[in-house]
Amino acid sequence: MSTLRKLQVVSPVPADIDIANSVQPLHISEIAKELHLSPTHYDLYGKYKAKRLSEDASRLINTGDETNIKSTFGDSFSNEMVVDLNVFGASMELIRWGMHELSNLIHSEGDVRAYDGKILEGTNNTPIVLLSVIDELEGSADGYYVVVGGITPTPLGEGKSTTTVGLCQALGAFLDKKVVTCLRQPSQGPTFGIKGGAAGGGYSQVIPMDEFNLHLTGDIHAITASNNLLAAAIDTRIFHESTQTDKALLNRLCPPDKEGKRTFSNIMFRRLKKLGISKTKPEDLTPQEVNKFARLDIDPDSITWRRVMDVNDRFLRKITVGQGPEEKGMVRETGFDISVASEIMAVLALTTSLADMRERLGKMVIGNSKAGDPVTADDLGLGGALTVLMKDAINPTLMQTLEGTPVLVHAGPFANIAHGNSSIVADKIALKLVGPGGFVVTEAGFGADIGTEKFMNIKCRYSGLMPQCAVIVATIRALKMHGGGPQVVAGKPLDRAYLTENVPLVEAGCVNLARHISNTKAYGVNVVVAVNMFATDSEAEVNAVRNAALSAGAFDAVLCSHHAHGGKGAAFLLLDKDLRVAVGWDVDGVGVDLGIAVQKACENVTQPLKFLYPLDISIKEKIEAIAKSYGASAVEYSEQAEKQIEMYSKQGFSGLPICMAKTQYSFSDNASAKGAPTGFILPIRDVRASIGAGFIYPLVGSMSTMPGLPTRPCFYDIDLDTSTGKVIGLS
Amino acid sequence: MSTLRKLQVVSPVPADIDIANSVQPLHISEIAKELHLSPTHYDLYGKYKAKRLSEDASRLINTGDETNIKSTFGDSFSNEMVVDLNVFGASMELIRWGMHELSNLIHSEGDVRAYDGKILEGTNNTPIVLLSVIDELEGSADGYYVVVGGITPTPLGEGKSTTTVGLCQALGAFLDKKVVTCLRQPSQGPTFGIKGGAAGGGYSQVIPMDEFNLHLTGDIHAITASNNLLAAAIDTRIFHESTQTDKALLNRLCPPDKEGKRTFSNIMFRRLKKLGISKTKPEDLTPQEVNKFARLDIDPDSITWRRVMDVNDRFLRKITVGQGPEEKGMVRETGFDISVASEIMAVLALTTSLADMRERLGKMVIGNSKAGDPVTADDLGLGGALTVLMKDAINPTLMQTLEGTPVLVHAGPFANIAHGNSSIVADKIALKLVGPGGFVVTEAGFGADIGTEKFMNIKCRYSGLMPQCAVIVATIRALKMHGGGPQVVAGKPLDRAYLTENVPLVEAGCVNLARHISNTKAYGVNVVVAVNMFATDSEAEVNAVRNAALSAGAFDAVLCSHHAHGGKGAAFLLLDKDLRVAVGWDVDGVGVDLGIAVQKACENVTQPLKFLYPLDISIKEKIEAIAKSYGASAVEYSEQAEKQIEMYSKQGFSGLPICMAKTQYSFSDNASAKGAPTGFILPIRDVRASIGAGFIYPLVGSMSTMPGLPTRPCFYDIDLDTSTGKVIGLS
Repeated sequence: MSTLRKLQVVSPVPADIDIANSVQPLHISEIAKELHLSPTHYDLYGKYKAKRLSEDASRLINTGDETNIKSTFGDSFSNEMVVDLNVFGASMELIRWGMHELSNLIHSEGDVRAYDGKILEGTNNTPIVLLSVIDELEGSADGYYVVVGGITPTPLGEGKSTTTVGLCQALGAFLDKKVVTCLRQPSQGPTFGIKGGAAGGGYSQVIPMDEFNLHLTGDIHAITASNNLLAAAIDTRIFHESTQTDKALLNRLCPPDKEGKRTFSNIMFRRLKKLGISKTKPEDLTPQEVNKFARLDIDPDSITWRRVMDVNDRFLRKITVGQGPEEKGMVRETGFDISVASEIMAVLALTTSLADMRERLGKMVIGNSKAGDPVTADDLGLGGALTVLMKDAINPTLMQTLEGTPVLVHAGPFANIAHGNSSIVADKIALKLVGPGGFVVTEAGFGADIGTEKFMNIKCRYSGLMPQCAVIVATIRALKMHGGGPQVVAGKPLDRAYLTENVPLVEAGCVNLARHISNTKAYGVNVVVAVNMFATDSEAEVNAVRNAALSAGAFDAVLCSHHAHGGKGAAFLLLDKDLRVAVGWDVDGVGVDLGIAVQKACENVTQPLKFLYPLDISIKEKIEAIAKSYGASAVEYSEQAEKQIEMYSKQGFSGLPICMAKTQYSFSDNASAKGAPTGFILPIRDVRASIGAGFIYPLVGSMSTMPGLPTRPCFYDIDLDTSTGKVIGLS
Repeated sequence: MSTLRKLQVVSPVPADIDIANSVQPLHISEIAKELHLSPTHYDLYGKYKAKRLSEDASRLINTGDETNIKSTFGDSFSNEMVVDLNVFGASMELIRWGMHELSNLIHSEGDVRAYDGKILEGTNNTPIVLLSVIDELEGSADGYYVVVGGITPTPLGEGKSTTTVGLCQALGAFLDKKVVTCLRQPSQGPTFGIKGGAAGGGYSQVIPMDEFNLHLTGDIHAITASNNLLAAAIDTRIFHESTQTDKALLNRLCPPDKEGKRTFSNIMFRRLKKLGISKTKPEDLTPQEVNKFARLDIDPDSITWRRVMDVNDRFLRKITVGQGPEEKGMVRETGFDISVASEIMAVLALTTSLADMRERLGKMVIGNSKAGDPVTADDLGLGGALTVLMKDAINPTLMQTLEGTPVLVHAGPFANIAHGNSSIVADKIALKLVGPGGFVVTEAGFGADIGTEKFMNIKCRYSGLMPQCAVIVATIRALKMHGGGPQVVAGKPLDRAYLTENVPLVEAGCVNLARHISNTKAYGVNVVVAVNMFATDSEAEVNAVRNAALSAGAFDAVLCSHHAHGGKGAAFLLLDKDLRVAVGWDVDGVGVDLGIAVQKACENVTQPLKFLYPLDISIKEKIEAIAKSYGASAVEYSEQAEKQIEMYSKQGFSGLPICMAKTQYSFSDNASAKGAPTGFILPIRDVRASIGAGFIYPLVGSMSTMPGLPTRPCFYDIDLDTSTGKVIGLS
């Protein structure tokens, strides 16, 4: 791909933002061009992001020239080159290939600085890929579909995003494949809280990182706005119904037009139809029908719809609203969730078209009437307005990695409190854009027990797409934790036990990896384990993991060296500041080896996709199937949970898939139960439903849907250099 | 201007959105080109909006070719034309000119359909004009600067936005002037509530109207996000301080780095400096200094910072937060305002540069410490992060009118509860872009007593800009109301009294107009009254208004016919569906006459700008000066107001200008006191301060900062046609 740039890898690895800032991103039109999209096919949002693809795109898919990337170089080379073959982690195949290339390079030294002008020059445009491309591309064949999950993580994270981006860079550059990475949009909450930005790390990042982490193209803002408009409408409707007769309500809902005629607005026919009322004129309704139609009679205690904010604001977790004098005592206890936990986010992530999104948004249930009937957004008159607010958000945003490979950013539900996967829309478009032999790699949040499980049982069910390969990212340190190592705490340095070789501890922890492998294999995909190795890990430890992985049925288990290793093992034909040429196109140590393994896994699928549970069994049976995959011996339902399950079953919602809200820190509900716990009871505290998004939502233990700010949030380090306009301190 | 398009005016005038949808907007690059901006100078946001102008723009300002608009026609002409000279409201000058053009037209009939291809074809791009252009354009001369205000309005609105846009269309098209309209971004609250969209009306609109009304380029979303991050930080800080010792707080605020060294982050030096602590290492602080630095000791009862939402959500007006178990009883009563009421919106509207915005945001006062010292955003560590969140919002958004004239959309504070004017940044850029002889027209919200007054005393003070002309828009119906007519209620039909001739009633109401004229003249500007005439108004009534206006000292008083008149008097050389050619380039009836009057007013300024009050007098004296201009005989301060004024004076903030929060429906605090009330007492209920934005903020009577949704919000009519992606029902 001619847009690929060669990075100058520096040792020790600089801070993420310094790496990001050291590279001039390509104008996104360059990225789009590689995907055979022309400027008329998309809309720009600044220079580095785009949205909206027009209908002509399909004609350009799978055509276009191929550029031999091996002949393309960045101009960061110096004339002095010393070949350093002592590259940690590079396979012999890779080294041999590199030597060959290098000799070509030295031989034609005069051309070293020649490069494809598009890489480092050019205007900067970032296109966004529109939904409509899916329609025209029906009939075009898809590329390979890869999901990246992980073992149960430590609070420090195990480098899953980095691995995802790095894998794409390896597939795209070294293996010369068409590849698109599909990622979630980060919530701005953690960006200013503890976690910092989410653009990946080291040399595997989405850039520009500030645009990725801040605002993007407004999708989360649109979710916040529409979610909260619905919330306002609920409370206001209860209020207005409390002070007006049925007739007055009807008259206000259907005001006379200029000729004095009262009519129903289009959206009202949805409610009328639901109620079995086929009349078309308000004046024809009987008093009983007026009552049914105009009076939603919402039971305030049944309201599950909460407001949202994309800020870590713990003081909004539990609040009382309506305390103003004009609200006449209609107070109500409720709270805010973080925006990415909104059902509208889930709808965005699971929808397949504008028309589908319209229906899902209208179907969202906000609570019940006092008679026990579900009240929807369409009942409140809002389905259309919500769709209007979300009409731009339905289009994914195209950005780029540091290496110049394309990234589609779309939707961002968390995996512990929501379904944890980026959008179906982005994946569908990407699979067509890369075409047969190409790769789409998407990340499922947290461990495979929650992220990958929901990818399979919810996302693939709705998309109809079939992944060939599931990657599971593991680290020695996490496996040691699972083997019984000391507690790992975010923000505190790791205990010595994690920094010294201890093969038995690692082996003991591999039970966690083994269970994730076996659960994931059961879907029919080929599982590739990516072992993210840190400088403090030993080869013996890595081998132990490899063996355990293969024994547990992994298709392959591959070493990747983390960027903290200094990238020495990472870059292919790049010059580092010690004037050594590193060999291999595995920037950030992810490894072409991983790329090769994933490619083989995709090409050798022997089974069809199998879901963990069918949809036509009861809600409890489905929950129990998932609990079994966690290792639970039984499931216990609280009274509230029983009540909710009964209600949803009665309301006809039992045919939906299940989205478990559970801690990411253990298979069980107990965050400190590491490894592969067995024989435990899984407690279901409550059950909610996201009818618009299309899943039942059991809550395991207590999960917070609104994070809080620490004493010293990372916003203390964030500022703007007002002379250059550049962002400082975003990590 | 070659981008101008000829509109086919239809009678009766269709709904706003149908008019908007009947016109294919130009790609915004065409609009930018007319302003001599090339594609490298701006960023696109889709096809019809843009942001960010780069530094080379100045070289292109005031160069470029001039196109003779009189030779440009749209292709909507038919070959059959009947000249209808019986055009209501067109001046003889206009008619003569039209006849001349028409004869040319008939003479060269074969060319009738020939037009400048740029008008109706072409790609669609909308550029945004970046702040940096101000710097390079220093030294370039400014154009004329016109502010459009109004008399005290009825709840129906008097067509001020329509007049503003129409005036620009007249100046730009018929008078062939370079003109930029500077407007406020609409809040999404009213868009889904009562008011509907705010793009103007009839044939004077900003398009695409859905992009103007929904999301735009994310400025209000950025304000919501940053405002609420600050709010979260306040409550969380109080919480963390309550559970930690001074030392523990310091250690958390200054954690050890990899070498174990503790340091202050850059932003912390601001607080240290404010406290007079010049030490640079945390370990050097004395215990007393640690206490002063690390413990903000915020008095919860003194907190004035509220959260915001861009939704009409009355149930958030008064709430209790912090009721969750983890928040350990630290509950607090507070509430949400509508986002456009945020101080951050005021900062955006009054800032002049990135560096200035950084300082203002950091200086915002959220409340006091228990010792009575103001606590700022910088004290909380947030000034930089807020600036980062607002770094794109500081750039205005360029859009277009129906006629293809440029519009800069930037900032949107209401005029009753905030300072009611679009941004200084947009005006400054626009004045340079239009250059000498060009015009920048901006709208001040509601009546001149609040909108124009704040334009002069706050906005012009901070910008240093000097307007030459102030337009005051009046309607016969509003003047009748002021003369004693029956109550006007939004959503109800007008009483007969407003639809039948009643010259005495109009004359009685002119006292309101006269006071606005005399107040506005006192600033030194030339006042032009624009009388928006409706079909039900008579010539005698209009003449009465004209006479009253001129007697009150207006430079001129001009008739404009409202678009409800069917546009017959409105369009110049356009064919309506009755096959009549209407004469005059005053689409929507605003009138070239108004354009001519405004031009003359600008060219004949005889006085310098005079503010209503100097800054170096006391807060009370300033409030009293403003109250006097309202006609009040005295000002009464509540106990709370006295307390606040004393506190702000003590804190050193008495040198700031004043922003009165007062009803738009009367000069006085009493919304039903129409006309020009005298001898009343103006009650000041409370006084707040927006230190970052830079004004003291007295509240007159009770003003709601959070609107509510009615029983039947207009969202019932809003939907998306999912087959075309077009918005339906946005009005």
